[in-house]
Amino acid sequence: MRERILDAAEAQLRRHGPAKTTVSDVARALGMSHANVYRHFDSKAALQDAVAERWLSKVSDPLEAFVTRKGPAARRLEGWVQALAEAKRRKVLEDPELFAAYHAVAEAAREVVAGHLATLLRQVAAIIADGIREGEFKVKDPAEAARAVLSATIRFHHPHMVRAAAGTEVEADIKAVMKLVIAGLKAGAL
Amino acid sequence: MRERILDAAEAQLRRHGPAKTTVSDVARALGMSHANVYRHFDSKAALQDAVAERWLSKVSDPLEAFVTRKGPAARRLEGWVQALAEAKRRKVLEDPELFAAYHAVAEAAREVVAGHLATLLRQVAAIIADGIREGEFKVKDPAEAARAVLSATIRFHHPHMVRAAAGTEVEADIKAVMKLVIAGLKAGAL
Repeated sequence: MRERILDAAEAQLRRHGPAKTTVSDVARALGMSHANVYRHFDSKAALQDAVAERWLSKVSDPLEAFVTRKGPAARRLEGWVQALAEAKRRKVLEDPELFAAYHAVAEAAREVVAGHLATLLRQVAAIIADGIREGEFKVKDPAEAARAVLSATIRFHHPHMVRAAAGTEVEADIKAVMKLVIAGLKAGAL
Repeated sequence: MRERILDAAEAQLRRHGPAKTTVSDVARALGMSHANVYRHFDSKAALQDAVAERWLSKVSDPLEAFVTRKGPAARRLEGWVQALAEAKRRKVLEDPELFAAYHAVAEAAREVVAGHLATLLRQVAAIIADGIREGEFKVKDPAEAARAVLSATIRFHHPHMVRAAAGTEVEADIKAVMKLVIAGLKAGAL
């Protein structure tokens, strides 16, 4: 039922945007009372947070494969950045209006966004920690290094930047930045 | 006279925003005919381009000091990034509405923005070329490396990112990213 409500909320969001998506509309679309929706989400904010959370999980869940996969950490880290950039880029290109609506919801859901960022940082730190353990990277603090890697690649995954760059090729730029970053990790710059 | 017209256009921009800033208003503010303004700028677009160009020059001109200065290229490059980030940050914090107005003008003035980016790339490439000449950096192509450096530091200087981060501390993040980037340049990653 929770998933069905989120599906209906997503459909409303797509059609009317975040400001005009109400719990009553979502309930009506599902042919249920809004008391019923409130049993699962106790406010419009809670419902929108859940929509944003599910949306962001669809970005971060597939990236987990790069964390658990075997192989050199440098290659997995580059793959992780490319996959994240590609996921964001696809969302913008496929449906810019829906992306804008989701983005507005995510902007309001600050805790959800912070949780998403924490997930991304944890994934990158885990790959870097593997690299340190294998002697591939010489940095000391995986968490600090992960923060620097996310900063250095923000052009390729931050919604503002992805929207601004929609339609331009960034593959070569990702490769060049990752060469600098990985050389820095190998040299123990941090 | 050209400078006086630009000052008046800036004042209009500050008060009314880019959409409502007209050549007639600017002329009226200066007590001259708009034919007189048109003698210097042959359209509203040309006037706004010139305003954007002057604004962006105020950002890039002081950075030239890091290009001509003596000393290790790594330190000059880091200083250049910090000074650029600080200039952008100061503009946002001092007057967010004016920053937004300028940003809108700059967005419309695509050639002017491209020229500004070309200036920044030239400055960074010149510092990197010095580093290569002195044996400090091992990268091959200063232009390619400059592009990667600007990409990797975009969080600290792109208007979208600077506005989103207004009020947060980024000094430590700049230092961490620059450690990775400079180690990459020293290792000859590109």
